[in-house]
Amino acid sequence: MIKRNANLAKLSNGYLFPEIQKRKLKFISDHPQAEVISLGIGDTTEPIPSSIAHAMSQEAIKLGTIQGYSGYGPEQGLNELRERIASQLYFNRISSSEVFVSDGAKCDIGRLQMLLGKHVSVAIQDPAYPVYVDGSIIQGVSNIVYMPCTPENNFFPDLERTPRTDIIYFCSPNNPTGAVATKDQLTRLVDFAKSNQTIILFDSAYANFIQDSSLPKSIFEIPGAKEVAIEVSSFSKLAGFTGVRLGWTIIPQALKYEDGTPVNVDWQRLTTTIFNGASNIAQRGGMAVLEDRGLQEVKKTCQFYLENAQLIKTALEQQGWEVYGGTNAPYLWVRFKNRKSWEVFQALLENYHIITTPGSGFGPSGEGFIRFTAFGARNNIMLAIDRLKKPFVC
Amino acid sequence: MIKRNANLAKLSNGYLFPEIQKRKLKFISDHPQAEVISLGIGDTTEPIPSSIAHAMSQEAIKLGTIQGYSGYGPEQGLNELRERIASQLYFNRISSSEVFVSDGAKCDIGRLQMLLGKHVSVAIQDPAYPVYVDGSIIQGVSNIVYMPCTPENNFFPDLERTPRTDIIYFCSPNNPTGAVATKDQLTRLVDFAKSNQTIILFDSAYANFIQDSSLPKSIFEIPGAKEVAIEVSSFSKLAGFTGVRLGWTIIPQALKYEDGTPVNVDWQRLTTTIFNGASNIAQRGGMAVLEDRGLQEVKKTCQFYLENAQLIKTALEQQGWEVYGGTNAPYLWVRFKNRKSWEVFQALLENYHIITTPGSGFGPSGEGFIRFTAFGARNNIMLAIDRLKKPFVC
Repeated sequence: MIKRNANLAKLSNGYLFPEIQKRKLKFISDHPQAEVISLGIGDTTEPIPSSIAHAMSQEAIKLGTIQGYSGYGPEQGLNELRERIASQLYFNRISSSEVFVSDGAKCDIGRLQMLLGKHVSVAIQDPAYPVYVDGSIIQGVSNIVYMPCTPENNFFPDLERTPRTDIIYFCSPNNPTGAVATKDQLTRLVDFAKSNQTIILFDSAYANFIQDSSLPKSIFEIPGAKEVAIEVSSFSKLAGFTGVRLGWTIIPQALKYEDGTPVNVDWQRLTTTIFNGASNIAQRGGMAVLEDRGLQEVKKTCQFYLENAQLIKTALEQQGWEVYGGTNAPYLWVRFKNRKSWEVFQALLENYHIITTPGSGFGPSGEGFIRFTAFGARNNIMLAIDRLKKPFVC
Repeated sequence: MIKRNANLAKLSNGYLFPEIQKRKLKFISDHPQAEVISLGIGDTTEPIPSSIAHAMSQEAIKLGTIQGYSGYGPEQGLNELRERIASQLYFNRISSSEVFVSDGAKCDIGRLQMLLGKHVSVAIQDPAYPVYVDGSIIQGVSNIVYMPCTPENNFFPDLERTPRTDIIYFCSPNNPTGAVATKDQLTRLVDFAKSNQTIILFDSAYANFIQDSSLPKSIFEIPGAKEVAIEVSSFSKLAGFTGVRLGWTIIPQALKYEDGTPVNVDWQRLTTTIFNGASNIAQRGGMAVLEDRGLQEVKKTCQFYLENAQLIKTALEQQGWEVYGGTNAPYLWVRFKNRKSWEVFQALLENYHIITTPGSGFGPSGEGFIRFTAFGARNNIMLAIDRLKKPFVC
């Protein structure tokens, strides 16, 4: 039979979250009485606000009528949705023709990696969301540089020590550390990209959690970013669409390859070839999110998760642990010095029956850290906090 | 700035359908009075049957409740849907663990091409749906063989003249020719793949149009296919889900790489990395399609389109044209000897104000052919037929 694709063989065995799931199931099977609480995977738990759920429900009904039926939509997304994203989320800093609607940030990152191909060199924050590295490896990219982001450098990479690469992946608010880059930091990043002729792949999937108005929610708040940046984002955490599937990518007209071809020309070509647009029902939901009522409703859900984050943060600090994030982000990043992440993961599971995410799963600099997510029903969060009052044996 | 990905630069300028759209808009702007009828793009036009639309509507409402909310689902799809696909569409010839739910066949073909990588050689039916060639080129595949499928060989490739390749793309019922491979032909194809250690990528997106019970609806009706075939399929044409987005891929456990790794192990790894599953609302719709009532309802819509096909076929034959397909497929394939496809496309547009699809857009052997689609509202089809009674000036 045919040879296995060597790029796939290079991937580490399990993607992080399926691996956690496996360990969770083993623990449950060994301890059938335990009520395990998950503060692991960053999955939304609150219902979709009613005006948005209702809009999707109506759209589904319409699809059952002659007048309301629609088939293939534009691969780039419905114009009205692109316009609302541009106006409501970017205040027309970018134009609607630069907005490309997708079925989610992770999927679009995979397609962007296909767009960029195997011959690019990439720099990735360390720790980082696994798709940046794994998706690059699938494409055959071999030149990957890690940029350590630790408490010692305020979770912002030391650009003076970072070699020039074609691409820099940058996620803010950060998954997993919960750190948010300041305007000054992002200005330095954009300047660095400009002087190196680098494209920044900016992931703003958690932008809605930013409360401090001085912190940028988009790379395009930084002057000059349009010539060097692509932004990937999502309705998943903005509106609880993790299962509904809807996201977007901004590729500014001003972003061009060396030969002058606008990057979004190739993007349009690629997406019309191997993508067929996000679900029309999901897109109708996205439009409802971006109406005044929808925006107010999703803001409430966001506040709810941030209250969770504050409650967990207090509990973790009372253990005397070194806690980061959780203020403008739904993740808490906790350091356990001289410990292995998986060892602490196991101990947290055994001590408290709480599932977390081992920091080492996000990269070498995540070793010794644990990520707690603030997504969860309040009664579960309160239960977890209560358990965390007991001393930790590890 | 960084170099453009050379693979993207290799693609021909426009993907076929956007190009048709451009020409259509130009014609409309030049002839604002003309009522253009589209028999071009294969897009469904009939409403989604009510039981299915209702199921999706209910799911959307549920997502707005604490009890009914769901976030990330399994990347491979909901177990219940996988089971129904296996039992209702494959009569348990394959197991539900071999079914991988997706957001559509085209998107899954793109991901399969990513899975297979650049070092594979591929054979492609000529003419064929553009994603097979274009998606391969995006991956950097350079070894592409065309297998001409023409009236002269009954639209089945001459396997004795086909060199050995790693992959064979095969679509039946065929887009664009409307030809359906017989059991005998597919048996020869499977034998050919077995003796050559080739993987068949079988596209059965139009299987529901097969009326003749002697014709296979799946490659897995052929003994031994499980060791050499992947099947990609879709709810798009089965249930009018072109805009809803839902499909599936079958990767049998028995399909293995040279080193013994099951192909579906790498598939699972790839999809968990760069895909997040189809929309939960769409999946709920898929389940409703595969209930008894849903199956009956979608059968009616399928019959409706096949009646359209018959009506168009008669009209085309009355012009004295050489017409293929349209019996067990929603496409009619018409030969205009010694003519260029785009020239005929333009003449049909000017004579009848009818949009079609030029056969040359599907590959070199499509030159001189035109594809008519049977998807359309009945009044439009009747109008088109009426226009086709006038003599053709080309």
